[in-house]
Amino acid sequence: MKFVIQKDKLVQSVQDVMKAVSSRTTIPILTGIKIVAHSEGVTLTGSDSDISIESFIPSEEDDKENVEVIQAGSVVLQAKFFSEIVKKLPKDIVEIEVGNHHSTTIRSGKAEFSLNGLDAEEYPHLPQIEEENIFKIPTDLLKAMVRQTVFAVSTSETRPILTGVNWKLENGELICIATDSHRLALRKAMIDSENLETYNVVIPGKSLSELSKILDDTNELIEIVITENQVLFKAKNLLFFSRLLDGNYPDTSRLIPADSKTNLTLNSKDFLQAIDRASLLAKEARNNVVKLSTFTDGLIEISSNSPEIGKVSEEIQAEEVQGEELKISFSAKYVMDALKALEGTEINVNFTGAMRPFVIKTTNDDSMLQLILPVRTY
Amino acid sequence: MKFVIQKDKLVQSVQDVMKAVSSRTTIPILTGIKIVAHSEGVTLTGSDSDISIESFIPSEEDDKENVEVIQAGSVVLQAKFFSEIVKKLPKDIVEIEVGNHHSTTIRSGKAEFSLNGLDAEEYPHLPQIEEENIFKIPTDLLKAMVRQTVFAVSTSETRPILTGVNWKLENGELICIATDSHRLALRKAMIDSENLETYNVVIPGKSLSELSKILDDTNELIEIVITENQVLFKAKNLLFFSRLLDGNYPDTSRLIPADSKTNLTLNSKDFLQAIDRASLLAKEARNNVVKLSTFTDGLIEISSNSPEIGKVSEEIQAEEVQGEELKISFSAKYVMDALKALEGTEINVNFTGAMRPFVIKTTNDDSMLQLILPVRTY
Repeated sequence: MKFVIQKDKLVQSVQDVMKAVSSRTTIPILTGIKIVAHSEGVTLTGSDSDISIESFIPSEEDDKENVEVIQAGSVVLQAKFFSEIVKKLPKDIVEIEVGNHHSTTIRSGKAEFSLNGLDAEEYPHLPQIEEENIFKIPTDLLKAMVRQTVFAVSTSETRPILTGVNWKLENGELICIATDSHRLALRKAMIDSENLETYNVVIPGKSLSELSKILDDTNELIEIVITENQVLFKAKNLLFFSRLLDGNYPDTSRLIPADSKTNLTLNSKDFLQAIDRASLLAKEARNNVVKLSTFTDGLIEISSNSPEIGKVSEEIQAEEVQGEELKISFSAKYVMDALKALEGTEINVNFTGAMRPFVIKTTNDDSMLQLILPVRTY
Repeated sequence: MKFVIQKDKLVQSVQDVMKAVSSRTTIPILTGIKIVAHSEGVTLTGSDSDISIESFIPSEEDDKENVEVIQAGSVVLQAKFFSEIVKKLPKDIVEIEVGNHHSTTIRSGKAEFSLNGLDAEEYPHLPQIEEENIFKIPTDLLKAMVRQTVFAVSTSETRPILTGVNWKLENGELICIATDSHRLALRKAMIDSENLETYNVVIPGKSLSELSKILDDTNELIEIVITENQVLFKAKNLLFFSRLLDGNYPDTSRLIPADSKTNLTLNSKDFLQAIDRASLLAKEARNNVVKLSTFTDGLIEISSNSPEIGKVSEEIQAEEVQGEELKISFSAKYVMDALKALEGTEINVNFTGAMRPFVIKTTNDDSMLQLILPVRTY
């Protein structure tokens, strides 16, 4: 194998596939990046067996030459060293050549590295996915749907299925749900589907977070293929494979209350900042629990009391308060996470009592919903 | 105590004194910040008993009112909570009032915090320093002198004296020296001294690092007072006290070779980057040791060989090579630290043999010197 490549293209591509490489793998060759030079360009692959990422650098693109392949071939190089090296090479052009025993020379300017490589034949094959049923979604919408749900997955392995996000595709609508059993985030969107297949799968939260980091903020369509145990995201010059989680995701629809007894309409930023301030004292002393009380005249009080340290209270003026008076305690972190995910300027908070889950939505937007369980305090 | 203060002034001042507050102190009250309101303004103090910082916010400054003191008094508030709170207050104006049992109310907009305070009378007194012998130095020069030496102090407590920087003042010249016994950094400057006192003290490296972080990059003069066991830095509205280290600093003058056998003149950036690249493979495998070899025609090779991973070599063109041929091994980190500290574009490296310490200087600048011990390799 021998090729000459633009450094910036190589650096970007290595950075992308590195997202899948883990140093804590039980399969030693997966600490490496597979490099294949072929007639169309160079393909890099990284994998931790849960996530696999393939990045393709075409020989030519937009009338510019990225790669000149002098001799086709392949090798696997230690990801940690290879990624550090390419970033720090002195010139804009890099030459990579494989010699005897997979020993690989990397040249740029007057710097010459020689890395011990491994046989690419021993690198595991990527999942073979039949691309029969493809659906498409704008990349920026996909990133928004991930961002607005993935933070709510469980970080505990006691119920592994909750570490993933439930993706349901039905009648052309994609519904993403995440819950750690203390809060739930839901986001839905109509999508462009060539078929009317129905899916109900669970994608590991970590996979979606890594995917989001790699994708650019464009409205270009990304293709998604779901199989029995894999999902494949296909963007321009990029394939992102993730395994799916085994098991049935709990039916969460019954958790969401149909009616409500106290309804607030609030400025999201005022609400978020008041909770943030109240949580300053609650963070250590009381497991980050703050209290919300409604008053007449649309006044709401956010407060927290930690006898060892002190107390805090703040009034905010709601735009509207309807229904019964209410005092309720909740995790400041969960409500702040939810408000940040909603991204709305005006929000509705709907309560059905101090002991029942409550719902936060952006006003006039039914595509997103955040559900939070209150905390019982005495 | 009661006063109304501009939030930005309070935040800055709290941030400065926080540099001295440690959560790991054996004296509980030192986890707090002392606040004193008096006729001229408000004074904050933080201390970990090694370092003490006093920041003064004058009532009026540049025809603007910073503070309105309604009732003089004092209190000590938990630094961790107080600093977080002031940063997140909603409005530009803050009211602070001490009530019964040192309970302190902090109001801004509609947010009201109440913090349990402590009696300021129980806060340790700052060292009393007789300001007889003061010398002055521009703040930016002081910061440069600290930056160019403090990185070389020892991080090990086996010889505590080496964790400090040796400051010698003699005949109007200030000489700062730091060494961890593997390398040495020296920086000197003529300073404006009102007297001809001679000092030879050792200031903890940590104190100098914290001092540097607080000081602005200005050429305003900072006043320095040295006593038997304390040093005091006086900037505008800021007092910074540090204890001195006990013991005699070793005489380092004999370490610096008077003559040399091989002299290189190099572009500092080329040299730094080549060493940085060579160290990529050496970092793990070989304790970060790289090798330098001189060749004819002013060529220098920087190389490293780690059989498990691979090898790297890079040629750089020196501007001048004089004297004997040389092969020498050294710590990439030490040489990179030294080159970063020198900040010069063209440097001289003077060797007296492969087993002897070598000296790096900026060309045509005798005020700075970096000395590095080579590593013996077989």
